[in-house]
Amino acid sequence: MPTFDQITDVLSRQAIELPSWAFGNSGTRFKVFGTPGTPRTVQEKIADAATVHRFTGLAPTVALHIPWDAVDDYAALRRHAEDQGVSLGTINSNTFQDDIYKFGSLTHRDDAVRKQAIDHHLACIDVMDATGSRDLKIWLADGTNYPGQGDLRGRQDRLAESLAVIYDRLGPEQRLVLEYKFFEPAFYHTDVPDWGTSYAQVSALGDRAMVCLDTGHHAPGTNIEFIVMQLLRLGKLGSFDFNSRFYADDDLIVGAADPFQLFRILVEVVRGGGMEPGSPVAFMLDQCHNVEAKIPGQIRSVLNVQEATAKALLVDTAALARAQEDGDVLAANGILMDAFWTDVRADLAAWRETRGLPADPMAAYAASGYQQQIESERVGGQQAGWGA
Amino acid sequence: MPTFDQITDVLSRQAIELPSWAFGNSGTRFKVFGTPGTPRTVQEKIADAATVHRFTGLAPTVALHIPWDAVDDYAALRRHAEDQGVSLGTINSNTFQDDIYKFGSLTHRDDAVRKQAIDHHLACIDVMDATGSRDLKIWLADGTNYPGQGDLRGRQDRLAESLAVIYDRLGPEQRLVLEYKFFEPAFYHTDVPDWGTSYAQVSALGDRAMVCLDTGHHAPGTNIEFIVMQLLRLGKLGSFDFNSRFYADDDLIVGAADPFQLFRILVEVVRGGGMEPGSPVAFMLDQCHNVEAKIPGQIRSVLNVQEATAKALLVDTAALARAQEDGDVLAANGILMDAFWTDVRADLAAWRETRGLPADPMAAYAASGYQQQIESERVGGQQAGWGA
Amino acid sequence: MPTFDQITDVLSRQAIELPSWAFGNSGTRFKVFGTPGTPRTVQEKIADAATVHRFTGLAPTVALHIPWDAVDDYAALRRHAEDQGVSLGTINSNTFQDDIYKFGSLTHRDDAVRKQAIDHHLACIDVMDATGSRDLKIWLADGTNYPGQGDLRGRQDRLAESLAVIYDRLGPEQRLVLEYKFFEPAFYHTDVPDWGTSYAQVSALGDRAMVCLDTGHHAPGTNIEFIVMQLLRLGKLGSFDFNSRFYADDDLIVGAADPFQLFRILVEVVRGGGMEPGSPVAFMLDQCHNVEAKIPGQIRSVLNVQEATAKALLVDTAALARAQEDGDVLAANGILMDAFWTDVRADLAAWRETRGLPADPMAAYAASGYQQQIESERVGGQQAGWGA
Amino acid sequence: MPTFDQITDVLSRQAIELPSWAFGNSGTRFKVFGTPGTPRTVQEKIADAATVHRFTGLAPTVALHIPWDAVDDYAALRRHAEDQGVSLGTINSNTFQDDIYKFGSLTHRDDAVRKQAIDHHLACIDVMDATGSRDLKIWLADGTNYPGQGDLRGRQDRLAESLAVIYDRLGPEQRLVLEYKFFEPAFYHTDVPDWGTSYAQVSALGDRAMVCLDTGHHAPGTNIEFIVMQLLRLGKLGSFDFNSRFYADDDLIVGAADPFQLFRILVEVVRGGGMEPGSPVAFMLDQCHNVEAKIPGQIRSVLNVQEATAKALLVDTAALARAQEDGDVLAANGILMDAFWTDVRADLAAWRETRGLPADPMAAYAASGYQQQIESERVGGQQAGWGA
Repeated sequence: MPTFDQITDVLSRQAIELPSWAFGNSGTRFKVFGTPGTPRTVQEKIADAATVHRFTGLAPTVALHIPWDAVDDYAALRRHAEDQGVSLGTINSNTFQDDIYKFGSLTHRDDAVRKQAIDHHLACIDVMDATGSRDLKIWLADGTNYPGQGDLRGRQDRLAESLAVIYDRLGPEQRLVLEYKFFEPAFYHTDVPDWGTSYAQVSALGDRAMVCLDTGHHAPGTNIEFIVMQLLRLGKLGSFDFNSRFYADDDLIVGAADPFQLFRILVEVVRGGGMEPGSPVAFMLDQCHNVEAKIPGQIRSVLNVQEATAKALLVDTAALARAQEDGDVLAANGILMDAFWTDVRADLAAWRETRGLPADPMAAYAASGYQQQIESERVGGQQAGWGA
Repeated sequence: MPTFDQITDVLSRQAIELPSWAFGNSGTRFKVFGTPGTPRTVQEKIADAATVHRFTGLAPTVALHIPWDAVDDYAALRRHAEDQGVSLGTINSNTFQDDIYKFGSLTHRDDAVRKQAIDHHLACIDVMDATGSRDLKIWLADGTNYPGQGDLRGRQDRLAESLAVIYDRLGPEQRLVLEYKFFEPAFYHTDVPDWGTSYAQVSALGDRAMVCLDTGHHAPGTNIEFIVMQLLRLGKLGSFDFNSRFYADDDLIVGAADPFQLFRILVEVVRGGGMEPGSPVAFMLDQCHNVEAKIPGQIRSVLNVQEATAKALLVDTAALARAQEDGDVLAANGILMDAFWTDVRADLAAWRETRGLPADPMAAYAASGYQQQIESERVGGQQAGWGA
Repeated sequence: MPTFDQITDVLSRQAIELPSWAFGNSGTRFKVFGTPGTPRTVQEKIADAATVHRFTGLAPTVALHIPWDAVDDYAALRRHAEDQGVSLGTINSNTFQDDIYKFGSLTHRDDAVRKQAIDHHLACIDVMDATGSRDLKIWLADGTNYPGQGDLRGRQDRLAESLAVIYDRLGPEQRLVLEYKFFEPAFYHTDVPDWGTSYAQVSALGDRAMVCLDTGHHAPGTNIEFIVMQLLRLGKLGSFDFNSRFYADDDLIVGAADPFQLFRILVEVVRGGGMEPGSPVAFMLDQCHNVEAKIPGQIRSVLNVQEATAKALLVDTAALARAQEDGDVLAANGILMDAFWTDVRADLAAWRETRGLPADPMAAYAASGYQQQIESERVGGQQAGWGA
Repeated sequence: MPTFDQITDVLSRQAIELPSWAFGNSGTRFKVFGTPGTPRTVQEKIADAATVHRFTGLAPTVALHIPWDAVDDYAALRRHAEDQGVSLGTINSNTFQDDIYKFGSLTHRDDAVRKQAIDHHLACIDVMDATGSRDLKIWLADGTNYPGQGDLRGRQDRLAESLAVIYDRLGPEQRLVLEYKFFEPAFYHTDVPDWGTSYAQVSALGDRAMVCLDTGHHAPGTNIEFIVMQLLRLGKLGSFDFNSRFYADDDLIVGAADPFQLFRILVEVVRGGGMEPGSPVAFMLDQCHNVEAKIPGQIRSVLNVQEATAKALLVDTAALARAQEDGDVLAANGILMDAFWTDVRADLAAWRETRGLPADPMAAYAASGYQQQIESERVGGQQAGWGA
């Protein structure tokens, strides 16, 4: 097994983008609970995200969601972020909250609706130009609730056409990542339900179109690390949306539901070159903190990814290859589990301190007074949520 | 196979309760779409429900949801319903939308929260006294999102204590039905996740406590008709919440996702005596019409149940028993399928006309002008939804 | 809705290949039950398959499984089949029953094992040359049971190399179809687990490599008709393995578990041109008759496909397109359901008679004495099963 | 968090029964692989089980399966076991491999079949009398593959009658544990599919009838620790069959697929008193070693349970209760995770040595020469498997 010192180089490269919306309120169709201190503005969201980075050193960028985070002056927003010590990252489009999109957006059979959805994405690319963002992430709520409601084939063809228009508008350093999702909010069919569909669509576009893998968007039992392996192999894994789930798209804290799965995913990321310098893989959180505190929830999340990455890097790959070659199933599995069961927390804590970071970011945040400060300062106004 | 004439006696007894909230707006955490004509008040919801009954003869009662449908004068509401030709039915409690219930209601570890939740149910029984309702239906959102968040065992014990207080308040003709649900809105554990838990809890209460089976609240692959059989056998099937699903608790129109499953469920209902006079089984819809028209959606739903019931009644049970006795798998399955594949729609249409009902309720409703009327009249105000 | 007469042209083109192994014994890891009359030889299997065709007119070809159906003289076997009125169809390879394949075949890290597996496929192509078969179907049991046991990425790369060698050996009129499967017999990872992997692999090979979709090989809840649509759209749907399932790869009679799903699949087949003359889509059964009679089980199966196809052809596509265009969800769904609920059995029976076939193939077979004959004649010897 | 010293008392009480059949060959319907050294007799199976105990101190008893392990002289077998340092444990019945049980055993509609199945269980109790076993474990393969094939209700009633006869025969110190299973080998319905059914059936029998929970026998996504909590609360958790699964009843090594789930299960066992002296809960493995070595596979398994138990015992329950009371979701979850992430392997190794056991049982077994010895000695004869 490598020593901890041998893996810190890679660990020091790790960067996990935070979603601005994780700091706003979220919930279920039954209830969205508010909490004291919740941001009212994108600037406050960025301040919270920067706080996570300050305590962890892991989260140097913030993803924006348009229109939730739309502002008049993106250059100013960019400076605001940089003043806080972070950068603006992926731009996420939204074609699921206007009444016009009730029956689809980029797949809609009405040319006018489709044009509006395309134009929204072109406007998002304008934002990217202003923020310096590399990635446009497209997650579509498009789908149907009843068999017969839509023409699956026609919708797929129109999706291809719409994406081509958007892709053509990208700058040479910009990328499009297409997310897939098994179901929800559509309950019969989803227009991009699986990695195969996303892969087929982005392959038709070109080299700068890639797949976004959200760890909560699969059928029960799906072997997600296999998909990670396959997309890396095919050169089409553009980004991760990390979260975890017991049931559907629960959007729980990454690693909370099945920490062994997160470890296996990171083992395949490492195996496939996803942690190497210049790797095209972007790492991002996409979670909901429905009942837990938001800022510590994000801190916990990036730490979970860091711990799982450390364990993945500790796998004794030479010994593993030998056991695999020998057909020694128990030995091979045991080598993997040795890394998983190794408690990396003390080593990580000590290493953090060498980098000027708190050994225990959760405790340090709790002791910092930041939470009390925002709870007392952020009074009045409209707490941010998915609607605004 | 029985003739259609031989099954009309049973069909004429069929009654399917409508949920008042099906006429309000509903949606997902991503978006709730509004539609013209949506009721603003419980009175308007009841008018819509009565319309469904007028066109189908299948829906003589309306379930209320407290506090969504709370009024000052329930006697007046009862008369309003009777004037429209329907009665008030099951009272549904709600302990999932107040901030105080964020970490539970009847299971909460804080005595004060638990008392408030119990008191809400006692108030619901007061409503039942005023409306003449028989059933108090309890569906709990109680649960946790993360392992460790709650003490599963303590919560279960407190649930038992809370239910006992509520049960004791019931009048001699009133019942408590306890619904179970696999997951959502809680994403790690649900306090009443399966029929076994509901059965154990209601068995501890007494004869007038029974299980409510919502057809969308099971793990993937669950054989629901088996549970129907078992609960009927144990004398504890109190009521159905009908809807359908492809994935999670999609709340689609009953029979839309898997009409063969609905047929099998009704076969077991018939087999277990659930359609006999005096049966304790109450039939109710619990659906969301997120993207389809609401009143026709409810008409379609009760017709789906009626058609499936007719098919279930057409099973040649004598021949089926013989084939089962012979171990002739294909013959037995074939006898069941013969009933399923029989197109009962023309017979039902003709029979409806003999009862003074439209042959085609969907077409009759469309031609009636009711939809246009409510769309023009119901302008202004706040459309009803889950929040009000 | 089209009239029945308008769809008979397409119906008369329908051909469903039967698997020779459906006539042998099959079961679970717990028990394989034998039955009187079970074939002992491939010749007897073909005789049974030809019997299914004689009673239904739907099953003109028989798929072989090598080595289960290996013979010395394939030309003689071909004549035997033709004498019975059927042809030899798809050749299925088998790399899952030799001890050498315990840890993989085409993916194995040992060159010698991989070569043996490749050679087996080349030998299968030799058989195809002799039998005149068009398709080589590859289903791999390759996979692992424990994380770490194998190198997912290396296995995928080796799979690509192995398939390329096999593909190169195909004649200009021959095809390779690669089946995918979610799990079993491997319980951690499967080397071709989903359509995306099969699609990526066959796309790398060339035009005559296509995907085989087995309807039982998906994760719970997967929308299979979407995959049918997508593969037809991408020009890569080579063949179906029909069967049905409630849980895992149950291999029940096609249409038995979810007849509405089968209908939806065939709607997409029709929509995507899969029933048109010259379509590349081959239709085949792949089932197990563990507890039911085998020959009637196959008759029932092809009739189920025929009935579902008839219903799919009856969809009023013009009205459906209008309702979709109008965003009328209930109308669109209703148009689809109208076709599904139409009882096509009497029309099909009458049409069969016009073609010199029995109106009721199940009854005709039962009355034919064939079953009694084989039960009395096929005494002694070793009943065919998966092992031989 | 407790110190390791504080939990060794409980750990020293831990006993995990081994299934004799784990040492024989097993596989899937596709293939059963043999391995050198596999036992040919029950005596050899017991020798292997005793070896596992010798290296781990965790497995003092061996479960037998009748008729696979049937012998003429059980007293002699008992002495053989004791000579090896282990005792005979649970007796497992088998009504799934005789042709007569094709359509059921204790549920069969034919009185003669049912009587044979009952008699088999009575004979198993005779064995228990001779072996001194406490528990009769009943797992039934009973079920159907097609809707209509059987009468679900009648089968359930007959099951109750059959179990009552068996229960009446038990001695005052003997128990009946009824296992449930979601599916397989039946693919439409299983007669004891869920804990609710097992609970209802054993509750009707009496105090010495309890539920057996096999960790692989649930629907996807089922929260198993909730069921553990509930059955402990109801006083009806009789025993565990430990194994793990990614998909269906994969029967992998316990803890291999989801070690966090195993930990959560053991947390509830501890919480519910299942580790206390006199607890009625029996712990047993029920696994298949299809591709991995069998004796080390069993050693790995009991070590996995031991490690998970140690972690469960390390939970700081006082701090957890406080965090739960405070509604501090992240703190409560964090306290649980602290125990999970603690690497207990070194402490366990040191503690083992104080008890005269090898620090590393896997390495000690590998170095012991036992495997080489049985491979050279066990030549000829018929390797044990599920059939014999």
